[in-house]
Amino acid sequence: MPRVVVDVMLKPEILDPQGQAVANALPRLGVSDVASVRIGRRIEIEFTGEPDLDRAREIADKLLANPVIEDFTVRVAEADETVDARS
Amino acid sequence: MPRVVVDVMLKPEILDPQGQAVANALPRLGVSDVASVRIGRRIEIEFTGEPDLDRAREIADKLLANPVIEDFTVRVAEADETVDARS
Repeated sequence: MPRVVVDVMLKPEILDPQGQAVANALPRLGVSDVASVRIGRRIEIEFTGEPDLDRAREIADKLLANPVIEDFTVRVAEADETVDARS
Repeated sequence: MPRVVVDVMLKPEILDPQGQAVANALPRLGVSDVASVRIGRRIEIEFTGEPDLDRAREIADKLLANPVIEDFTVRVAEADETVDARS
């Protein structure tokens, strides 16, 4: 079924304590080559008909993102794009 | 700087109440052509040197995803891929 992916990330100037917590935990795992970690949301919207980017943008703006502190992008998922197996 | 994107989504068989809440709110916005909404996480990892997919996969497995209920994919971000402006 046609899917639209909305990626929501904190604006670059907004502190991301969740991502920082992960970044701070990395040296304990022996990882020292990571400069930063930022954590946002990925939303998959399945349409009954044709994927509608404008509609998805409206949904993201009203329900999914906080425009004061977050940016979002909207795109149609590629046919082979799926997060249902480790790759 | 080279970036790796980790997408974490609930496995398809796991109920997503957060996504369902959004889907249920859509008719009130006049949106009736959405079949389902699933909400996951998008994590951006910036490496100091070359982006290291195996390292990112290890981080995702240990810190970012719960393999019991979530699947994840790891990929190098495309050069023009950024969530810092509405598109």
